Amino acid sequence: MINFEFANRVSDLHGSAIRAAFKALSRPGMISLAGGMPDPKTYPNRELSEIAARILAEKGVTALQYGITEGYAPLLEKTRARLKNAGIGNDKDSLIITSGGQQAIELVTKSLINEGDGVACENPSFIGALNAFRSYGARLYSVTVEEDGMDIEALDKTLSQNKNIKFIYTIPTFQNPSGITMSLDKRKRLLAVAKKHDVFILEDSPYWELRFAGENVPSIKSMDEDNRVLYVGSYSKTVSPGLRVGFLLGNEDLVEKAVVCKQVSDVHTSVLPQMMIDEFLSKYDIDERIKASAAINGKKCAFMHECMDRYFPDSVSRTHPEGGLFLWCDLGGDADSSAFAAACLDKNVAIVPGASAMPDPTQKTSAFRLNFSMASEAEIETGIKALGEIIKGYGR
Amino acid sequence: MINFEFANRVSDLHGSAIRAAFKALSRPGMISLAGGMPDPKTYPNRELSEIAARILAEKGVTALQYGITEGYAPLLEKTRARLKNAGIGNDKDSLIITSGGQQAIELVTKSLINEGDGVACENPSFIGALNAFRSYGARLYSVTVEEDGMDIEALDKTLSQNKNIKFIYTIPTFQNPSGITMSLDKRKRLLAVAKKHDVFILEDSPYWELRFAGENVPSIKSMDEDNRVLYVGSYSKTVSPGLRVGFLLGNEDLVEKAVVCKQVSDVHTSVLPQMMIDEFLSKYDIDERIKASAAINGKKCAFMHECMDRYFPDSVSRTHPEGGLFLWCDLGGDADSSAFAAACLDKNVAIVPGASAMPDPTQKTSAFRLNFSMASEAEIETGIKALGEIIKGYGR
Repeated sequence: MINFEFANRVSDLHGSAIRAAFKALSRPGMISLAGGMPDPKTYPNRELSEIAARILAEKGVTALQYGITEGYAPLLEKTRARLKNAGIGNDKDSLIITSGGQQAIELVTKSLINEGDGVACENPSFIGALNAFRSYGARLYSVTVEEDGMDIEALDKTLSQNKNIKFIYTIPTFQNPSGITMSLDKRKRLLAVAKKHDVFILEDSPYWELRFAGENVPSIKSMDEDNRVLYVGSYSKTVSPGLRVGFLLGNEDLVEKAVVCKQVSDVHTSVLPQMMIDEFLSKYDIDERIKASAAINGKKCAFMHECMDRYFPDSVSRTHPEGGLFLWCDLGGDADSSAFAAACLDKNVAIVPGASAMPDPTQKTSAFRLNFSMASEAEIETGIKALGEIIKGYGR
Repeated sequence: MINFEFANRVSDLHGSAIRAAFKALSRPGMISLAGGMPDPKTYPNRELSEIAARILAEKGVTALQYGITEGYAPLLEKTRARLKNAGIGNDKDSLIITSGGQQAIELVTKSLINEGDGVACENPSFIGALNAFRSYGARLYSVTVEEDGMDIEALDKTLSQNKNIKFIYTIPTFQNPSGITMSLDKRKRLLAVAKKHDVFILEDSPYWELRFAGENVPSIKSMDEDNRVLYVGSYSKTVSPGLRVGFLLGNEDLVEKAVVCKQVSDVHTSVLPQMMIDEFLSKYDIDERIKASAAINGKKCAFMHECMDRYFPDSVSRTHPEGGLFLWCDLGGDADSSAFAAACLDKNVAIVPGASAMPDPTQKTSAFRLNFSMASEAEIETGIKALGEIIKGYGR
C-alpha cells in the first residue's frame, strides 16, 4: 500500500451535499426538490437532435477535432451580441467559453487566489463556488444576504478589516440558494465599495433571464466602468445543463490568464456542445423559449407556495423569488436543517440543507433550499406535504 | 482601472506554444506538422451523427440534464471492461470519466501537490502536463529519456535527493514528444524505484493502442500490485479529441478526492459526448478501427521518414516510433529549434520546438517534434522539403 497525503488546500474538501443527493435521485419514487435543474420538459431535445446530426454530417471534422481554448468563434460572437444587448461588456473585456459557469468560477479563483487570500461571499451562497474557493485555500468572509441582497455596510467593514480579500463573490439575481434579488441601489453601492477597496467583483449570473415576475434589474457588470466586474454566465439554465457550456467575460489580462489555466484543465470545452448551442441560437428564438420556460417555473413556484400554505406551519418562513429556480425556507428556532434533510430523504424527498450554503461550514442553520422547477406539480404537492408532516412531527 | 496581482502559482505560467501554433493553422496554405490530431479522415463523423441524433431523440433528458460527476455509468462499465482486457486495474482502483486526459492530470496534481512539492518528469515531456504541474507550483525534476525510455538510475538518484517529490510522470508508450517506448525491463525497474521511495506513478497512456509496428509492451499499471500507478487514458486519439472524454483509474482514495476537485472544476464531463462514445463502443468494433487508423499513421510515418531521407541532411537525427503520432528530430550542434520553428512558420509549416517540452523552460534545445498523423502525404512532402531547405540554409 502506498502512503500519501493530499495537498493542504484540498485535504479538508468534501463533495457537495447536492451532488450526493443527486445520486440518491436514482432511487425509485424519489422526489427531487434538491437539484438546480430546469424542467426536463423545457429541454429542446428534438431540435438539438436534428442540429447535432447535421453538424456531425456537414462539419464533422470541426466538431470532432481539437478546438481553440477560448471557444468556438461563432458562439463567442453570438454570446457577445446577447451580452451587449443587455448592456454587458466593453472593448476592454475579453470573453471566453467555459465548461459551464462552474469552470469560470474556478479559473478566476486559480488565477487570483494564493493560499490565505480572501473572498467576500454572500451568506448563504452557492456551494459549488464556495468549494472552488476553498479548493485553492481561500479564506471565506461571510456577508449576510438581506431581503434586498448583500448587507453592503457589513461588506465595506469586512473589506476594511481584511486586506487579503481579492474579490467579492455575488449572485445578484435570483440568488442561489435564497432566491433573493439585489436591489439596484445596493448594486450601485456594491460597485462603489469594490472600487473604494480596489477589488474585483465576481458576478455570477446564471438565472437572470429566468424572470417570471417583477421588473428587470440591470446587472452589476452593465454599470462597471473600470473592468472590475468578472461576469459569469451560462447556457445551463437556458438550453441544457448537461452540455456544460458557460462563459466568462471581464478584464482582458485576467481572462488571458484564465485561458492559460483552462489549457491545463481541459484544453477546451467540448466542441460539439458549443456548435449545437451556436446553431440553436441561430435557428430558434431563444428569448421566447426562455420566457416560456420562466413562465412554467413561475407557475410551479406559485403552486409550491400554495402547497406550503396548506401543509407547512406558519412558523416556517420562506422567500418569494421573482425568477430563477430556488426558494429558501427557514424552520426557525434551533432546528438543524441537516438532520431535517436526512429525515426528508428517508421519506423519499430530496432537499438541500442550508449548512452546505454557509461560507463557515461549522455554522448550524435551520434553513434549507427548495427547487421548484424540476418536479411536476403532483410531485411538488406530495413532496411539500411530506415535508410538512416531518416539520409538524418536530413540534410534538 | 483595477490594480491586481495574479496568484503566485500561475503568475509566470504562459500558454502552450502548440496551442499558439494551433491558432496560426487557420492561415490559408498552412501545413501542420505540429498538433496531436489523428488523421481527420479517420473520424467516425457519419456514425456519430446518427448516434447523436438518436440519443437526443430517445434519451434526450438524460443527455441534456446534469450528470454524475464520476461519469456516465454505461461508459464507465465499458471503459473498465476494455482496461481489464489489457490487464489494467483491480478492485482497489476507482475509475472516473474526465474532460480529456488533460483533466485527469490536473485533478491528480491538484489533489497531491502543495507549492514546492516535486514531480519527476521525463525530459522531454508533454507540455500540457508540465504546465498543469507548474500551475500548482510544483517543482519539476527532469529525467532524461533514453532510447528505451526514462533513465531509471538517474530517476532513483533524483528521488533519493529530493524527498519533496510526490509522483513520477511518464508517458511510457509512443511518448509525447519523442515517440519513444519504454522497455519492459525499465517499466519493472520504474515500479520498483517508485515502491522504494513510496511515491505515485502517473502513467499517461493516450497512444498505446495506436501501434503500427513491433510488439505490445504491458502497461506499468498492469504490473502494479499496490495501487501506486494512477493511469490516465483517453478517447481523444481513438474516437475524437474534440469531444473531450478521457479517464483516470487508480487508488480509490486519490480518485475520490479527484472527484471532489472535478465537482468544483466542471461539475461533470458533458453528458452527450460520453453517451456518444458509449454508444459507439456498443455498435462498432473500435479495436478494428483503431488498428486501421494506426496503419494509416504507420504509412505516413514511414513516408515522412522517406521524405526526411530525401530532404534532410544526415546531421539531423530522428526517432523511429512504432506507433503514436509523433517523432522527434534533433538539428544537433548549437541550433536553437525555437528560432527554427519560427522560420518554419514563416514558410507556412507548423512544428513544435523542443523548448516547450523541457521541464526546465530556460533550457535551449536543438530538437523539435513532428506529427505524422494529420497532414496528407502531399502536405508531408511539401512540409518536410521546406524544413529541409531551412535546415540547409543554416549550414551556409
